Amino acid sequence: MPYEKDHVLLTDLYELTMCASYFQEGLSRIATFDLFIRDFPKNRSYFIAAGLSEALSYLANLRFSREQIEFLRSKKIFKRDFLSYLKNLRFTGDVWAIPEGAVFFPNEPVLRVSAPIIEAQLVETCLLNTINLNTTIATKASRVVLAAEGRAVIDFSLRRTQGKDAGIKGSRASYIAGCLGTSNVLAGMKYNIPLFGTMAHSFVMSFKSEEESFRAYARSFPDSATLLVDTYDTLSGVKNAVKIAKELEQNGHKLKAIRLDSGNLVSLSRAARKILNRDGLAYVKIFASGNLDEYKISALIKKGAQIDAFGVGTAMGVSRDAPYCDVIYKLSELRDNQDIFPAMKLSKKKATYPGRKQVWRIFDKKGNFLKDVLGLENEKLRGKKLLVKVMEKGNLAYRPPSLEEIRKNAAANLAKLPLKYQQLTNSARYSVEISPQLNVLTERLMYELEKNQKSRTGHKKSKRK
Amino acid sequence: MPYEKDHVLLTDLYELTMCASYFQEGLSRIATFDLFIRDFPKNRSYFIAAGLSEALSYLANLRFSREQIEFLRSKKIFKRDFLSYLKNLRFTGDVWAIPEGAVFFPNEPVLRVSAPIIEAQLVETCLLNTINLNTTIATKASRVVLAAEGRAVIDFSLRRTQGKDAGIKGSRASYIAGCLGTSNVLAGMKYNIPLFGTMAHSFVMSFKSEEESFRAYARSFPDSATLLVDTYDTLSGVKNAVKIAKELEQNGHKLKAIRLDSGNLVSLSRAARKILNRDGLAYVKIFASGNLDEYKISALIKKGAQIDAFGVGTAMGVSRDAPYCDVIYKLSELRDNQDIFPAMKLSKKKATYPGRKQVWRIFDKKGNFLKDVLGLENEKLRGKKLLVKVMEKGNLAYRPPSLEEIRKNAAANLAKLPLKYQQLTNSARYSVEISPQLNVLTERLMYELEKNQKSRTGHKKSKRK
Repeated sequence: MPYEKDHVLLTDLYELTMCASYFQEGLSRIATFDLFIRDFPKNRSYFIAAGLSEALSYLANLRFSREQIEFLRSKKIFKRDFLSYLKNLRFTGDVWAIPEGAVFFPNEPVLRVSAPIIEAQLVETCLLNTINLNTTIATKASRVVLAAEGRAVIDFSLRRTQGKDAGIKGSRASYIAGCLGTSNVLAGMKYNIPLFGTMAHSFVMSFKSEEESFRAYARSFPDSATLLVDTYDTLSGVKNAVKIAKELEQNGHKLKAIRLDSGNLVSLSRAARKILNRDGLAYVKIFASGNLDEYKISALIKKGAQIDAFGVGTAMGVSRDAPYCDVIYKLSELRDNQDIFPAMKLSKKKATYPGRKQVWRIFDKKGNFLKDVLGLENEKLRGKKLLVKVMEKGNLAYRPPSLEEIRKNAAANLAKLPLKYQQLTNSARYSVEISPQLNVLTERLMYELEKNQKSRTGHKKSKRK
Repeated sequence: MPYEKDHVLLTDLYELTMCASYFQEGLSRIATFDLFIRDFPKNRSYFIAAGLSEALSYLANLRFSREQIEFLRSKKIFKRDFLSYLKNLRFTGDVWAIPEGAVFFPNEPVLRVSAPIIEAQLVETCLLNTINLNTTIATKASRVVLAAEGRAVIDFSLRRTQGKDAGIKGSRASYIAGCLGTSNVLAGMKYNIPLFGTMAHSFVMSFKSEEESFRAYARSFPDSATLLVDTYDTLSGVKNAVKIAKELEQNGHKLKAIRLDSGNLVSLSRAARKILNRDGLAYVKIFASGNLDEYKISALIKKGAQIDAFGVGTAMGVSRDAPYCDVIYKLSELRDNQDIFPAMKLSKKKATYPGRKQVWRIFDKKGNFLKDVLGLENEKLRGKKLLVKVMEKGNLAYRPPSLEEIRKNAAANLAKLPLKYQQLTNSARYSVEISPQLNVLTERLMYELEKNQKSRTGHKKSKRK
């Protein structure tokens, strides 16, 4: 069974039980849900939107197979008419989104779904999962790229990502965020991401000597070999690499790089650079890896390490210091023919904003991002609207950008985000203002919800504007 | 294209380039690799083995498709004869493993692969990925279950796991570790894990009043409803739930539970329990959720919260405080016909143990785990051998246990692991001793490697015992 077809069941049981109850009660209102991140994880000061194309593919292909309906029937929770309804269920809603690669901030809906409530509810879990993973890794990777200050960063994370899906999507997300490529061959094939590879210690250990292992590898890859020099003694390893580089030169080839994977990368890289340059091998790059992240890379560069490229694995691939974003999917409006009911959760710490919303981005004179305004979609506000319509009545309503376009969009966005918002720690907080009308609606609804608490009224009818 | 067939390319490019070089050099030695965890992440004191059945399925199905070979050819890195060789490549090796559900410790090979070096090298990345995810989550979930002191724990993590694979495998791993079930419908279908569900705030908000939403849900699920009481005001919500419970009673049904998802869970659960009991609803369970983990659950219970079951999501599903294990795959031996070459990495901090190894577990008089001994597989040592042969010449060599058997194995293992090794923080460190012969071999090899460093000899030939 192809994996994609499973995805309709990648949902929490309560989505289905709620849908069954909506169905039984005949509730067919159009519900609008905002998918957004409540606040920054530690040390984050912006997010890179990612995962939209995957989310849209999920919505476009949403359907239950006969086996899946049979499974649900076997659970003896659902009534027959609801299960019959599910057989023909398709996603028929509208979706607005902040495009992949764009910078966004807490409380801004990165995805806004308007659909008959059963459809809109059912897709909650999978949409959250998709946007969370992709955005978390793209955001983390952009920090690593930032720390490398123009040096190449390669994604080496596959071996320790949280599963296979995270391995593939993580490579894509890191590429969006500015990594030069990945070691992940499947991601390379699926997304046409440049592939990079070096060698492992086991390779060196499989030959009689390090020198012999280097020679064998250079024979196989005379124009693209990166030699791992730290299996026994790093500087002896560098000298062996020099010997091989000289042999390659005699045959008209060039050693590409050496790789350091342990020890003091500052002193070792400087010593290695000296050895290489002394022997006329200034063209041989120094590649470093070994438990790196943005903090360590930044420190290495500050201390004068002579490293040309970084291989970054686990810390980036699992976003070690912040392995998820506090992403939520909240009801913001119900429409029943001409009646509009803005909705919000009433909670001191976790209040949400009601209504169908848009985000306007305001630029300074130089064209850099100044601040954002979160408002109601029909408001007339200055600035560039961030949410675009990507799906209408269940059909794609935009031209999906290529991965290269998404990557360029991320670079262009980050170039316009002032550096004070791109510090690895203690960044300034970018301002997201609430528009006057959204403020008024929120205050009014909050007042009415509190007033009506005794009569337990959950939402308030308002006139369509 | 079915997802499973992709997995052969879920590998780092360097595995393939090393394999190409082994191929070109005619290296066909039998290599043995140990897959093990170097040390504990913070606050971990044991691991629960998980992921073996998935790893074996990957090995048994390893083959390159025509399209995959074409993709590799298009990269212009590999020579034609190597690509032809890949077409017919199958995994033909032997695998020994610590079975799923068993408790194990750092340095103990949870998987040991012996195969022609090209095959053994190629599978490194995917095996690491699989064992890492499953073991990380099973270990984390066992801590959450431990903290709940016999109360039910349900996996609610799907919405924020790192991708879909992690969502599905995480539910399975948490079930192995003792969770009672999951909200993840697909995991329920794939693995026959019990499914649990409640309702979301959006459901409550979709009706005119909280009371009406509860009544609708109870109409749909008169014998299995769990009502979420904190959308507006928690204790008013409890009173609404009482009203619905009474209505259910009149029709011969029973409310199953209420759910608290925010606020002070200690005082709210106690107040809710009082209200429910006062109204003769002692049978209605109290379910709690909301950013929980083992530390918070333990604190809630200590403070006297009256909670019957916990829904645990993100913190468990991404193993928030330790989102990966330091799992590695290291060459420990090469065999060339009758010649055996034990291998190890020479590094002060990261030295590995050479040779084909076994783990013996020693029990105390009560049958509890006392300590483990890591030794060479042919040694005669007391204790129970932990590694069993699971694959021989590429074919399954054991009866794969059912998920229920694995879950029972985990419970039986944890029951025999003294509690001093199962503290949430500051656990005692379980002793893993090195056997006399392994010690001698390690010391000898280390001495020879250091001695030979100048002549850069990577490994030392020893006689077959």
